[in-house]
Amino acid sequence: MSITMRDVARAANVSVATVSHVINDKPGARIGDDARRRVLDAVAELGYRPNALAKTLSQGGSRFIGLVADAIATTPFAGQIIHGAQDEAWRHGYVLLVANTEGNTAAENDAIAMMLEHQVRGILYSTWYHREIEVPALLKQTETVLVNCYSEDDAYPAVVPDEEQGGRTATEELIAAGHRRIAMVNTTTPSPAQTGRLAGYASALAAAGIDYDSSLVFEAESAQEGGYAIAPAVIASGAEGVFCHNDRVAMGLYDGLRERGLRIPQDMAVMGFDNQDVIAAHLRPPLSTVALPHYEIGAAGVRTLLGLETITGSDRLLVTCPPVVRASL
Amino acid sequence: MSITMRDVARAANVSVATVSHVINDKPGARIGDDARRRVLDAVAELGYRPNALAKTLSQGGSRFIGLVADAIATTPFAGQIIHGAQDEAWRHGYVLLVANTEGNTAAENDAIAMMLEHQVRGILYSTWYHREIEVPALLKQTETVLVNCYSEDDAYPAVVPDEEQGGRTATEELIAAGHRRIAMVNTTTPSPAQTGRLAGYASALAAAGIDYDSSLVFEAESAQEGGYAIAPAVIASGAEGVFCHNDRVAMGLYDGLRERGLRIPQDMAVMGFDNQDVIAAHLRPPLSTVALPHYEIGAAGVRTLLGLETITGSDRLLVTCPPVVRASL
Repeated sequence: MSITMRDVARAANVSVATVSHVINDKPGARIGDDARRRVLDAVAELGYRPNALAKTLSQGGSRFIGLVADAIATTPFAGQIIHGAQDEAWRHGYVLLVANTEGNTAAENDAIAMMLEHQVRGILYSTWYHREIEVPALLKQTETVLVNCYSEDDAYPAVVPDEEQGGRTATEELIAAGHRRIAMVNTTTPSPAQTGRLAGYASALAAAGIDYDSSLVFEAESAQEGGYAIAPAVIASGAEGVFCHNDRVAMGLYDGLRERGLRIPQDMAVMGFDNQDVIAAHLRPPLSTVALPHYEIGAAGVRTLLGLETITGSDRLLVTCPPVVRASL
Repeated sequence: MSITMRDVARAANVSVATVSHVINDKPGARIGDDARRRVLDAVAELGYRPNALAKTLSQGGSRFIGLVADAIATTPFAGQIIHGAQDEAWRHGYVLLVANTEGNTAAENDAIAMMLEHQVRGILYSTWYHREIEVPALLKQTETVLVNCYSEDDAYPAVVPDEEQGGRTATEELIAAGHRRIAMVNTTTPSPAQTGRLAGYASALAAAGIDYDSSLVFEAESAQEGGYAIAPAVIASGAEGVFCHNDRVAMGLYDGLRERGLRIPQDMAVMGFDNQDVIAAHLRPPLSTVALPHYEIGAAGVRTLLGLETITGSDRLLVTCPPVVRASL
């Protein structure tokens, strides 16, 4: 490889120092997200091989980190977990190996055994949606970080989205847009997302001095059909704005509102959750939402595995879900 | 493992013979898609380990097939390629190892080198959308099958979707629904999908004795925004039905048609392409489309690698894109 850091800098239109900061993940260096992405894209496009990899190679250590997933690679949802883990692994001289097992226990054990045999640096064990899991016994034999999931006894470090903060942020955006009577359409499926997002909704209302009104909290199947079906009830509640459990629910609610002649956001402001690819940015009007930070969760999982990120306070690292404001508020 | 074929049969609500046919991919056995899926789901859920794996293990051979992908695992689109390859690999006693490299050449070479070192049975090299590629030189060192892509010289066996048949099928469905004046919204991006689907559209019209009218063929960015923007032109063309390059274009077209008061399908029949998860089944009305057979392409790639499927006639195995008829015709 004759690609140099200078080539990367030129392609990314940044200074060599910026490239170095990004590549070496220098603490304290403030690099904008945009510049960081451009650098990482240029690294990928040019096939730049950071020194860290050369160093690992010369030391003869293992160059692989394993990622064992249930269905991340095959569902159209959480693939950015893999992307973030890849970029971060690569930045520190590792190649990420993925086994996507669709919950097949025997396949999972075989994949873990192969990774152990290959002396991977450690294994990220990950799920496509945030939930509690039983950790496979084989994982005791290596360093393990749980990504987008956690064990009941918190025996392993875990990196998960901050559902409560996400729900609070979503609701705060509706309040900031001038609404006081705010409904929530929660999922019917028990999960950390169900309880966390509702708690965030309630705490944002309380902080704004708005009374919690249980008649404004609805439950629906967490898909377009659920959002469509709940539309009449949301309209009848007199809500001015509604926080939907996810973007698919918001998409169905859009259809239900439009069929009844309501305009978004003039007659009803709509907030989603997930910032789901393919949907959120492409609805009419484009949907305001809160992003599930899949890329960051994957990257933080690798950093935790490599000891570059320390989880303090609890055994779970909560990753912030940032707001993405578009035109539906 | 004490899970038996009988346990799988009970869980899938089929006979043991059916399970055996599915597990052993018995040629000539006619198993319905539904029963096949139930069996494979039960295999996955129960962690059933087919004899083939036990056999491979006892023979000491390599138990891994590699899948090197550009961005299949990280884009919300073609993940079913991995799912199909996994199921098929598992059925024949192999575990699939995935390296998703985002087009980073150095990472790709490292992943391939690791797979070669681990003496994988062979490597599937795959892309998230159907296109021509340059095959990495390292792949000469093992058996390689291209999946969803092909090399210019057809030096490697390749498994790809039959774009032309797909375009023909989409158009035939519109004709079967009683339409004669049928528009097509093609993509602006040069690709096998662009040329193949258009050829299929033309051939279906010819077979039905309908003159090809170039004023009915539009081009648009292959996303919701493209479909929305082209809506006035499609309406002005007097078309009764429209075949969209993909489901995202159809989703945007839906919005454009509705804003102008047109009903689907009464005022305009709409056909998509891809059967994209998250979108197609969940639009109002649910979208009729043609499925990209990602699952089948992944599975056929594994079968080709294992010599269980022979590519005759040309060096590319064309996999049928089946129609999925919903309520938009």
